[in-house]
Amino acid sequence: MFAPVYFDWNATTPLDPVVREAMLPWLGARFGNPSSRHEYGRQARAAIDEARARVAAAVGAHPTEVLFTSGGTEANNLFIKGAAAARKPGVIAISAIEHPCVREPARQLSRSGWQLREIGVNAQGVVSSADWEAAVMEKPALASVMLANNETGALQDVAQFAQQARAKGVWLHTDAVQALGKVEVDFRRLGVHGLTISSHKVGGPLGAGALVVDKRVELAPLIAGGGQERGLRSGTENVAAIVGFGVACERAAARQGEEAKRLSVLRDRLVELLGSCGARVFSAQAARLPNTVFFAMERIDGETLVAKLDRAGFACASGSACSSASPEPSHTLLAMGVDEETARGAVRLSLGRDSTEDEVARFGEAFARLTRELRSLTALAV
Amino acid sequence: MFAPVYFDWNATTPLDPVVREAMLPWLGARFGNPSSRHEYGRQARAAIDEARARVAAAVGAHPTEVLFTSGGTEANNLFIKGAAAARKPGVIAISAIEHPCVREPARQLSRSGWQLREIGVNAQGVVSSADWEAAVMEKPALASVMLANNETGALQDVAQFAQQARAKGVWLHTDAVQALGKVEVDFRRLGVHGLTISSHKVGGPLGAGALVVDKRVELAPLIAGGGQERGLRSGTENVAAIVGFGVACERAAARQGEEAKRLSVLRDRLVELLGSCGARVFSAQAARLPNTVFFAMERIDGETLVAKLDRAGFACASGSACSSASPEPSHTLLAMGVDEETARGAVRLSLGRDSTEDEVARFGEAFARLTRELRSLTALAV
Ligand SMILES: Cc1ncc(COP(=O)(O)O)c(C=O)c1O
Ligand SMILES: Cc1ncc(COP(=O)(O)O)c(C=O)c1O
Repeated sequence: MFAPVYFDWNATTPLDPVVREAMLPWLGARFGNPSSRHEYGRQARAAIDEARARVAAAVGAHPTEVLFTSGGTEANNLFIKGAAAARKPGVIAISAIEHPCVREPARQLSRSGWQLREIGVNAQGVVSSADWEAAVMEKPALASVMLANNETGALQDVAQFAQQARAKGVWLHTDAVQALGKVEVDFRRLGVHGLTISSHKVGGPLGAGALVVDKRVELAPLIAGGGQERGLRSGTENVAAIVGFGVACERAAARQGEEAKRLSVLRDRLVELLGSCGARVFSAQAARLPNTVFFAMERIDGETLVAKLDRAGFACASGSACSSASPEPSHTLLAMGVDEETARGAVRLSLGRDSTEDEVARFGEAFARLTRELRSLTALAV
Repeated sequence: MFAPVYFDWNATTPLDPVVREAMLPWLGARFGNPSSRHEYGRQARAAIDEARARVAAAVGAHPTEVLFTSGGTEANNLFIKGAAAARKPGVIAISAIEHPCVREPARQLSRSGWQLREIGVNAQGVVSSADWEAAVMEKPALASVMLANNETGALQDVAQFAQQARAKGVWLHTDAVQALGKVEVDFRRLGVHGLTISSHKVGGPLGAGALVVDKRVELAPLIAGGGQERGLRSGTENVAAIVGFGVACERAAARQGEEAKRLSVLRDRLVELLGSCGARVFSAQAARLPNTVFFAMERIDGETLVAKLDRAGFACASGSACSSASPEPSHTLLAMGVDEETARGAVRLSLGRDSTEDEVARFGEAFARLTRELRSLTALAV
């Protein structure tokens, strides 16, 4: 089988073979429902307890603070809507560059009595402390600021924001889906009230995620029923996925430091190669993820470029690849003050565990060739 | 490994090996995010489209009517809360024997302006047409009556109820989680507005389920974000689980008629064996699932019996095994007018694809021996 080079690790990651091995028994002889009180059920329950301990350890939390969900999107919705249901309608503040799965539930709240405030970012895609302080002055009941942006990779100073949030009684949530495994993620050190992670972004399977949540946060369940996950997330637990998620978190946390070093070297090489072709790299001056490069080429459309790269054997993302097909320009770039045309032309490369120097070198060659071709076409058209 | 006889197929089913084979590539080289517009993504998108067609065909629906969720619990919550959000608060009517994942979301509604009406069942665990008609007279905006009960296996006349519902503008939903693969499930023929199914109850993996829903039903998403599933269920799709669910549905529907015949013979044999030990079988006079026997033994506690059977190598359920550990008596039996002590003593046997005559025979012997032992202990204690 022809396997294109995969430079889209922020969209999803291939399943780590070690994780896969850990999951397979749970897709075979060990099939019990964790709520069943016979041998099959007890085995499944024990596996979930173990996975919970692994996930908690990977993010510096206590196992009782980990609520398993079906993924990052559900965990973000659970915090935003679940916490809102427990508080009187007030202000909810989110950054202008949140993933749609934070922005949309916040918008839903704004249609039922809540006031939605967006906190702007600077030209580097970063929420300034001044802007955060101004947002806190409005005494929001809830706030959400992502730890790392999925498009630019820009990191936010969430630990600092959390201190001010606690002082003012704001429940601050952070979407750490893109941060886990790439930079340090420590629930206690961050000091937030809620934190979201997702299995398929860290070498684990699709179908699992977690909301790590301070016990003092009251939550109403989004999905109610049999009472699983302390009554906060009902439904028969996806045992195999949760087991895989546990192993994936453990491995992601263990390898994070070394991987960050290795990937940032590859990332810097990409930035260099892109720069020599005239690319504009976004958030280049910000503290950011070691694996992500988001860029645009003047006069070259991102969709076209990504389609050409795809045919040349490189899987990359145009705009935000996490959300459904939509021809809208990146809202992250617009929030950074980038013009619409440039934002529409943006392309994301994101590296991971299997990315190599050789892949980067091959990409560099193909990219130079394709952009030359596209430029000569544009020149002819003028 | 010692493998106990599994008589708890209503709680969850072992993964069908054919389904497992179909899933494995999606836990390997085919790992793309269906929203990605490169080769890996397109493969994943095509796999989901194919699975949607299989699920739709298995339940007599159109593919565009199938919304994938993480499981049956989420699908039930999505209908109940999602449809409620689109209607003005009014009456919601549910049967008294619904699974907690219908009852709890309905109770949540009753705390935000809705009036919850429970429709009683007769001594056989069946909603009578008179009781249904009385409920419809109240013009509920929403109603939910399960196709087959998870404990007794009793079937409800949902097709009949749906006709009256349509005539009165009631949006009727049915939880068909326990019906699929055991009796015919045909969305069009039933005529309901919404229908829930779950993968892990039909030989598919955990982590997938579906709400089959009439396009005329307006729904608000429970889980909002990237806009997957027509904007009604966001979150990166669990590709492997959805692929497995598709194959499992296809196989369950294809084998349903034959399996029903085969299992009802085994079920009748169990009823006979239990009867000869003095058991009282619930819903014995009702039309019911071919695989389920729910019974109680006078003066023998269900928990104790299930624990003894477990040690003897038989995995059975006490009370409702689908919901989290709770020492409450079965609410289904209480609704049928069974006294608390008997309800607490109830035990469920549920058969499936791998169940054999030999397992039934061995169970019969063990059961006779264990109940004799327990009876002599009770006799001594008196
Ligand atoms: C920042 C961020 N948050 C949340 C999500 C959603 O997570 P999931 O795909 O597990 O639903 C994604 C990606 O899809 C993401 O990049
Ligand atoms: C009747 C019924 N409905 C819904 C469910 C919930 O389905 P799931 O386990 O997929 O969440 C179950 C079993 O758990 C059930 O028996």
